Amino acid sequence: MAATREKTPAKRADAQRSIEAILDAAVRCLSRNPDASVSEIAKAAGVGRVTVYGHFPNRADLVDAALRRAVEEGHAGLDAVDLEGDPREALARLIVSSWQLVSQSRLLLIAAQDVLPPGRIRELHAGPVERIERLVERGRDEGVFRVDLPTTWLVGVMHSVMHGAADEINAGRLTQDKAAGYISATLLAAFAPPAQLPRK
Amino acid sequence: MAATREKTPAKRADAQRSIEAILDAAVRCLSRNPDASVSEIAKAAGVGRVTVYGHFPNRADLVDAALRRAVEEGHAGLDAVDLEGDPREALARLIVSSWQLVSQSRLLLIAAQDVLPPGRIRELHAGPVERIERLVERGRDEGVFRVDLPTTWLVGVMHSVMHGAADEINAGRLTQDKAAGYISATLLAAFAPPAQLPRK
Repeated sequence: MAATREKTPAKRADAQRSIEAILDAAVRCLSRNPDASVSEIAKAAGVGRVTVYGHFPNRADLVDAALRRAVEEGHAGLDAVDLEGDPREALARLIVSSWQLVSQSRLLLIAAQDVLPPGRIRELHAGPVERIERLVERGRDEGVFRVDLPTTWLVGVMHSVMHGAADEINAGRLTQDKAAGYISATLLAAFAPPAQLPRK
Repeated sequence: MAATREKTPAKRADAQRSIEAILDAAVRCLSRNPDASVSEIAKAAGVGRVTVYGHFPNRADLVDAALRRAVEEGHAGLDAVDLEGDPREALARLIVSSWQLVSQSRLLLIAAQDVLPPGRIRELHAGPVERIERLVERGRDEGVFRVDLPTTWLVGVMHSVMHGAADEINAGRLTQDKAAGYISATLLAAFAPPAQLPRK
C-alpha cells in the first residue's frame, strides 16, 4: 500500500489503464476458450505476464475479476429492460435479456466454475439478484407470484435454471434458439401461486 | 495392462480390496471436508499415498471415482422408493429420497465441483437420471406432467434445482428441514401442464 501512495497520478492512471486492458482481454479470451492461460490473456491485452501477475496474483483471481466485470457490464445493460406492468410479463422480458448475457458468457462461466466455488459465483451476481428480488417481491405483493416459498428461494431457482440451461447447451442437449422459451415456461410455472392457473 | 495380466488372482483380489478401501475412505473424507488431501484419504484407507496414486493418477481421478461410487450406492438405495401410482406423488417420494442422498453428499459434491466440469458431474448421475426420465415419461403419458417441454429439459431442471438447493444450504440461505418441501413444491409446479392446476 505504501508503494501505491508514492505513485504519481500519471503512474496510477497507467496502472488503471493496464488493469482495464487485462480485464477486457480476460473476458474476451475466456468467453472463447474457458481454458485460456494467463499468458494468452496477457498477450491479448498487449502486456507481459509479469504485469498481469502484478495485478492478479493467480489465474483464479483473474477469472474472478473477469466474471465480475462481465456481470457488472451485463447488469448495467439490463437497465434498459422495462420492469413495469404485469410482473409475469416483466419477468419474461428480464429472462430473455438475462439469458442473452448468461449465454454470451457461457464459456466464461465454465472458466469460473472450474476455479471458483458456486457460492462465489452467486455472490458475483449480487447486482442481478437484487433486481430479480425486487421484481419477485412486487409480483408477490400483486398476488401473481407464489408466497408459499421465500423470495430468496425463487431467485435461487431462477439462477439454477438459467445456469443449468447453459450447462445443457454446453452438453449439446439444448439449442440456443429454444433456451429462453424453455426457461420462461419453466420459471413462470414454478413462480405461479399453487392455487392459480399460470397465464397462457 | 501387461502388468495386470501377469498378476496372480490373489494379487488382483488384494488390489481390488485396496481400491475398495480407498474409495470408501474418499467418500467418507470428502463428505466431511471437500478439501481433503490424497494423503488424508490414504491415511483413512490405511494405505500409503503411493498406493493411492497407483490406482488414481491424480486427485481429480480420485474425486471422480468417489462421486461415482456415492451416486451408484445412492442409486441402488433408491430401488426401495415406490414409483407406482400417481406420477406426481411418486415424483414427490423420489425427490425426498434423492434429496437425502444429494444432501448427504453435499460436501462431496463441492469437492467434485472444484475439480470436475458440470457435464462430467451430470454424466456420473446417468443412473438416477434414467430413473427420473422414466417417471417423467409416464407422467406425460398419463397427462399429469407437461408435454410442451422435452423430458430431458425437465430432468435437467430437477438436477439444477436439487443441486442449487445444496448450494443454498452451503451458503446458509436454506435450512436442511425445509429443502425437500421447497424442491417438491417448485418441481411439481414446474412439471404441471400449463393449462392445469397443480394438485394441492
